[in-house]
Amino acid sequence: SQTGGPGCPVRLRSGPCRPQVAHPAESITQVELNRPEKRNAMNRAFWSEMVECFNEIAGDPSCRVVVFSAAGKVFTAGIDLMDMAGDVLNPEGDDTARVAWNVKKIIAKYQETFTVIEKCPKPVVVAIHGACVGGGVDLITACDIRLCTQDAWFQVKEVDIGLAADVGTLQRLPKVIGSRSLVNELALTARKMFADEAKSSGLVSRVFADKDAMMAAALEMAEEIAGRSPVAVQGTKINLVYSRDHSVAEGLDYMATWNMSMLQTQDVMKSAQAAMEKKSPKTIAFSKL
Amino acid sequence: SQTGGPGCPVRLRSGPCRPQVAHPAESITQVELNRPEKRNAMNRAFWSEMVECFNEIAGDPSCRVVVFSAAGKVFTAGIDLMDMAGDVLNPEGDDTARVAWNVKKIIAKYQETFTVIEKCPKPVVVAIHGACVGGGVDLITACDIRLCTQDAWFQVKEVDIGLAADVGTLQRLPKVIGSRSLVNELALTARKMFADEAKSSGLVSRVFADKDAMMAAALEMAEEIAGRSPVAVQGTKINLVYSRDHSVAEGLDYMATWNMSMLQTQDVMKSAQAAMEKKSPKTIAFSKL
Amino acid sequence: SQTGGPGCPVRLRSGPCRPQVAHPAESITQVELNRPEKRNAMNRAFWSEMVECFNEIAGDPSCRVVVFSAAGKVFTAGIDLMDMAGDVLNPEGDDTARVAWNVKKIIAKYQETFTVIEKCPKPVVVAIHGACVGGGVDLITACDIRLCTQDAWFQVKEVDIGLAADVGTLQRLPKVIGSRSLVNELALTARKMFADEAKSSGLVSRVFADKDAMMAAALEMAEEIAGRSPVAVQGTKINLVYSRDHSVAEGLDYMATWNMSMLQTQDVMKSAQAAMEKKSPKTIAFSKL
Amino acid sequence: SQTGGPGCPVRLRSGPCRPQVAHPAESITQVELNRPEKRNAMNRAFWSEMVECFNEIAGDPSCRVVVFSAAGKVFTAGIDLMDMAGDVLNPEGDDTARVAWNVKKIIAKYQETFTVIEKCPKPVVVAIHGACVGGGVDLITACDIRLCTQDAWFQVKEVDIGLAADVGTLQRLPKVIGSRSLVNELALTARKMFADEAKSSGLVSRVFADKDAMMAAALEMAEEIAGRSPVAVQGTKINLVYSRDHSVAEGLDYMATWNMSMLQTQDVMKSAQAAMEKKSPKTIAFSKL
Amino acid sequence: SQTGGPGCPVRLRSGPCRPQVAHPAESITQVELNRPEKRNAMNRAFWSEMVECFNEIAGDPSCRVVVFSAAGKVFTAGIDLMDMAGDVLNPEGDDTARVAWNVKKIIAKYQETFTVIEKCPKPVVVAIHGACVGGGVDLITACDIRLCTQDAWFQVKEVDIGLAADVGTLQRLPKVIGSRSLVNELALTARKMFADEAKSSGLVSRVFADKDAMMAAALEMAEEIAGRSPVAVQGTKINLVYSRDHSVAEGLDYMATWNMSMLQTQDVMKSAQAAMEKKSPKTIAFSKL
Amino acid sequence: SQTGGPGCPVRLRSGPCRPQVAHPAESITQVELNRPEKRNAMNRAFWSEMVECFNEIAGDPSCRVVVFSAAGKVFTAGIDLMDMAGDVLNPEGDDTARVAWNVKKIIAKYQETFTVIEKCPKPVVVAIHGACVGGGVDLITACDIRLCTQDAWFQVKEVDIGLAADVGTLQRLPKVIGSRSLVNELALTARKMFADEAKSSGLVSRVFADKDAMMAAALEMAEEIAGRSPVAVQGTKINLVYSRDHSVAEGLDYMATWNMSMLQTQDVMKSAQAAMEKKSPKTIAFSKL
Repeated sequence: SQTGGPGCPVRLRSGPCRPQVAHPAESITQVELNRPEKRNAMNRAFWSEMVECFNEIAGDPSCRVVVFSAAGKVFTAGIDLMDMAGDVLNPEGDDTARVAWNVKKIIAKYQETFTVIEKCPKPVVVAIHGACVGGGVDLITACDIRLCTQDAWFQVKEVDIGLAADVGTLQRLPKVIGSRSLVNELALTARKMFADEAKSSGLVSRVFADKDAMMAAALEMAEEIAGRSPVAVQGTKINLVYSRDHSVAEGLDYMATWNMSMLQTQDVMKSAQAAMEKKSPKTIAFSKL
Repeated sequence: SQTGGPGCPVRLRSGPCRPQVAHPAESITQVELNRPEKRNAMNRAFWSEMVECFNEIAGDPSCRVVVFSAAGKVFTAGIDLMDMAGDVLNPEGDDTARVAWNVKKIIAKYQETFTVIEKCPKPVVVAIHGACVGGGVDLITACDIRLCTQDAWFQVKEVDIGLAADVGTLQRLPKVIGSRSLVNELALTARKMFADEAKSSGLVSRVFADKDAMMAAALEMAEEIAGRSPVAVQGTKINLVYSRDHSVAEGLDYMATWNMSMLQTQDVMKSAQAAMEKKSPKTIAFSKL
Repeated sequence: SQTGGPGCPVRLRSGPCRPQVAHPAESITQVELNRPEKRNAMNRAFWSEMVECFNEIAGDPSCRVVVFSAAGKVFTAGIDLMDMAGDVLNPEGDDTARVAWNVKKIIAKYQETFTVIEKCPKPVVVAIHGACVGGGVDLITACDIRLCTQDAWFQVKEVDIGLAADVGTLQRLPKVIGSRSLVNELALTARKMFADEAKSSGLVSRVFADKDAMMAAALEMAEEIAGRSPVAVQGTKINLVYSRDHSVAEGLDYMATWNMSMLQTQDVMKSAQAAMEKKSPKTIAFSKL
Repeated sequence: SQTGGPGCPVRLRSGPCRPQVAHPAESITQVELNRPEKRNAMNRAFWSEMVECFNEIAGDPSCRVVVFSAAGKVFTAGIDLMDMAGDVLNPEGDDTARVAWNVKKIIAKYQETFTVIEKCPKPVVVAIHGACVGGGVDLITACDIRLCTQDAWFQVKEVDIGLAADVGTLQRLPKVIGSRSLVNELALTARKMFADEAKSSGLVSRVFADKDAMMAAALEMAEEIAGRSPVAVQGTKINLVYSRDHSVAEGLDYMATWNMSMLQTQDVMKSAQAAMEKKSPKTIAFSKL
Repeated sequence: SQTGGPGCPVRLRSGPCRPQVAHPAESITQVELNRPEKRNAMNRAFWSEMVECFNEIAGDPSCRVVVFSAAGKVFTAGIDLMDMAGDVLNPEGDDTARVAWNVKKIIAKYQETFTVIEKCPKPVVVAIHGACVGGGVDLITACDIRLCTQDAWFQVKEVDIGLAADVGTLQRLPKVIGSRSLVNELALTARKMFADEAKSSGLVSRVFADKDAMMAAALEMAEEIAGRSPVAVQGTKINLVYSRDHSVAEGLDYMATWNMSMLQTQDVMKSAQAAMEKKSPKTIAFSKL
Repeated sequence: SQTGGPGCPVRLRSGPCRPQVAHPAESITQVELNRPEKRNAMNRAFWSEMVECFNEIAGDPSCRVVVFSAAGKVFTAGIDLMDMAGDVLNPEGDDTARVAWNVKKIIAKYQETFTVIEKCPKPVVVAIHGACVGGGVDLITACDIRLCTQDAWFQVKEVDIGLAADVGTLQRLPKVIGSRSLVNELALTARKMFADEAKSSGLVSRVFADKDAMMAAALEMAEEIAGRSPVAVQGTKINLVYSRDHSVAEGLDYMATWNMSMLQTQDVMKSAQAAMEKKSPKTIAFSKL
């Protein structure tokens, strides 16, 4: 149900708080949190909509890279406790074990919401401005490249409401930034981290003066990625995710097995020829993937 | 045998070079290396005392967070070679294999000394001033949050006495800081690293002008942690340690299984209500854990 | 076939583009990329020469540490596509599966070229100046300590020629530097990273004004390492590599098993005695290993 | 859409070759391959129907155990090559890499078809008569308990059509039976294995004279399982699958974490009381799960 | 506190239901369940006594092998629900999460009870007669060699009292016998398995006509083991346990690292010389380990 | 340097105790231990010759399957202690650590001798008659399919000469047969196991009356394997080895990645067509691999 292409107006999905999808340039899909009146708080609709949205993107050969951003004054205030209280705070069940059974189902469903970003073979560049709280940190750590504005701040908030963050932050944040002491401090004290520390710690790889500058850079970066062979780009993402969770020897073996077929692409020839002719990869017409 | 509580004077344990335990504020336990005349060198008594000390803390429901620091001019000069030479340099055994058998027993015992810090579900904030040498680095890498003074320096010293660091540094340091080149340099050359590089590399998350400022901040941080739900805080530590050693998928599954029961705590309700009433989590009376 | 020792002139190997080996000081082996007229591009001869070279070093008891550098204006321009096009772009095979079979053989062979650096128990200090592109990044991430000049730059180039980097970068780079966002950005966009960012991200642990300063520092660092017990140094490298790919508990067990024999070295006694007499480890005559 | 209960007639689904679902007794769901005119060959409809069927069963609290069997003269002849040739033999794609991309998607989809059986927390008892060929072996190795008739035979057929079995047999069969030599022989030679060897090798745990005897025993076994606490039964399956793929230490930790909540079920009390009163568990009314 | 040696009378420990320790022959320790009036049901005292008992054995250089058996008419009826109901059925805790916390502590403690058998480097031969139910199966799967009488039977009983077996059976049984279908059947249906099936499935490696014959064979086997180099025997056990939970490549590397020191034992020389002189290893005087 | 083909006389290699290579039928290579006057004891020449032999076979496209057997009265008496005593019993080194270093090198080299069998992608059928002792068990557990004569017996002998078996038996035997109790008994007591128990335990998959019958069956089995697509056969072996050391999920993912290219072989089409025409796969002319 995604339409449009370069130059066409942004097509919004109906409904509150759902991710909106647009196509700002060829081969680029932009997903936007769009519930600004509630500070983009994640309500019930959000969870299933995200899965559906990224499953579509994963299967859409005309998309090669995703830019993820948010409308309004902040990136997201995290989970909308009011809307979701029923699910999270009062799960059904005749006894403790049966409640637990349903709790696990709910958590697994929410975990999947962010894991779809990681499973999607197209790289996801996330652009963060203002607050990025709680579930927002779970979300951005599942993305591939993180950019933020100078006014952005990050907060692992879960410990403040009596629970250990369970939809990705505790699993991904330590593999995303370099300082374990900082990860522990953020998760255990729920203190805010601002843009400069986010940059120096490696949570984001670039900081921008304001949202306009960031979005321009994010799109430019997306165009760089979209202009390269999708076989190369998506193989790179898949193997980067694989290598995070495996030993170097395992990663090398998987990589070689992957490239048994992937090196047989015409893209290598096309790219090599362009390189010899001093042309940019962006001038090459790659087949869809 | 731990007594006291908020306001009561610090209770010291008897004996030289053993960690001393105090209770500077409610739910906070302070452990202090206290053998300043020997630069807090770790002698024979130290090893078993540490295990006993952290086993007590792990089982003490009135403790929610630990501050670890050192008396005197430096944090620690590392292992007291004089006192321990017999054990380490001349293990018993009728032949090489039998000596090796005893060597492994000794190493395993020393490794356990620092692993108890990691196994203890209560977060441990370590505050380092002056020298932190050899066994000191093994110790602090097993803690959760590292703070230091401007005059602190760190040295992986083992290579200087003819051995590969075998009680934790080589295993934990590479998972604690982001730069593998730096880890290798420190471990292979035994050069000193000073506070600024410790901060920029992520070994510590904060640097303070002097020990007083650091201790005040360490206690403040401990109070922040102690004021939050112990179910949330200890579940966070346990899952952060778990995720370090597992893939993201394994970590997510363990997290969901953990929270099957832990989300059924009253602390979530209490915390959510406090949040809605704009009260600090520190105002909530959580049950002991 | 390696000769020389401290003070003797550098002995070069014959042939174009092969790593050259010299002995600038006792126990130090220097390996140099030496095909400056082709910007040290890696041609066919390079791959097998590297394996042979590091196998020799691994078995040479008179070598305790390796310095790896490059002659000419840049470190390396990466793979020499012209020379290697036959192998990589046109592998033999009667059908897709049989081509794939040969592709895997080729990739596995190239992977081994850099893995020998990691398997070599002697630490490898790499000194990088000017460009370090494509295969160069695969190479340096397999080294232990990375230094660079102020004019150095790094580029994960593979995505530009239509393929996912398959000889080590995607597997090792994420375990070498702290920021996952930066790793992904570099690998997906093929943008250049300059010395300052290489330092702040942890890819290199030191930056120098020019090549002379860097080489002097590299040799000094190598002398520091060469002056320490080879039992300690090589055991440290082996266990650092092991711990990268294992949990902390696994790493501790392996370390203890390793030191069952290694702690029975005379080097510990010699080193302990030197330490008590306030002598440098460099004054000790250690047996060869 | 599953109806009925004990005593009600079997409700069949529409369409050829799809698994049919019935409820022969309380809490028992029976799934039957029902395309006897084609020897229950697995056609295109089969794959998605299986996923849907087991997802329903997984979420159906009135089902506690599954019996899987086949109508007609044989269990299954495996994949229906005629019907599926288009998918498997001629996948789309502009070049080798793009064909490979689609091949992986197809295989992953087929793998999921049998993995749903394993992911379903309700135990699956499979009853095999006559031929069980190719995809049939993939299917039964994903089930929990295997029974067969005296006339049953098994054949890992894939090597005969030029491919390595890729939807589960090579992964699960070696973990299902005890003799690695036998597994290799079966997979490499495609020879038939008959009921007696299936029993002595442990592929099946019981052999019956004919299908009637087997089905009666399968249902009796299903009733035994259905009569016990679903908290106990499903926790047992989940932890048996977990322990297959983890070390004993990992398995023990996961088990303890699992039972943090699951031991708080009323089923333990009810069961303990029944045990003391010498009553069968089958007399207890357990809540649904 | 263990006394005696070859020829000395069996020394029993005081107290009901605790394992009793004797020394039927040189270097052999016999541990016996001895609460026959309660069918050797495992009561509260049992758990801590087992840990103490095996820790002593692990550290006792005069013991080289353990024979584990039971007094009375049966091996064991499993956990003594009456005695342990308080612990298991009514754990303390102010809310569900805090009860869960205590449940985990209890389970971990019980798991450790059997894991000490596995961690003890001396091989444990278990001799089973009559019933071996519930906790008994957890116990014997942690032993190294299993023998039984013709009248022995085994029952994984936990599902009958509403819980998944959580102290070792679900983790170890699938790695102990070859047929996964049989493991699942036993654990899910709680049916009894008799001696013949225990033998054919590989749970036990030998079956004897009666207890006297079995005990004689167990002691003879223990003497065979005790007569060999303890360096060889205990290294064999440790590496067999290690290889169960690791890949072959990991196991080979650990084995080689282990034997770096262990091959330097005098036992190899002594054994090789005895072999050349056609003497039994039992004639060699090995040093204690 | 391998010559011959179907019908040509067996070409033997020169020298004592080296594996001899012949080509009894098209695409089949036979390797034979041939030092009957020393009961095929493995001497120094054996180790490097085996590596060379299997590396040749791995790279020889005219070989599709290997039969491994032994000349003379027994399969092998294991390591030739006399010939190898220097290496194994007196390794060089200035102190314990340096001796250990050399010990590890030697063990690693011997381990590689058998691991080459496993790494060779062509299936290896081993035919055992008479004694198979010590190193012989290491050898056969690295093969894919094991056959033996009625007079064959197997002995894990290492514990008798004071060492833990360190070149494969302790790592592979537990993954080769189903009964852990039996594995432990064999390795800890060094007792002999005869053909019937080898069959019932799954060590071998078939037993034959005498060597002639076994060799005929081994060749027939080899012909079955050689007659099928080498893409299918070798992919099957590689994935069976992979799945042994990985979880089912990991194995499935690797399998799918492997078949991305391998399913694009013409062999599938050729095989499918032959199947539809009711022809044996052996009638198909597959390209070399």
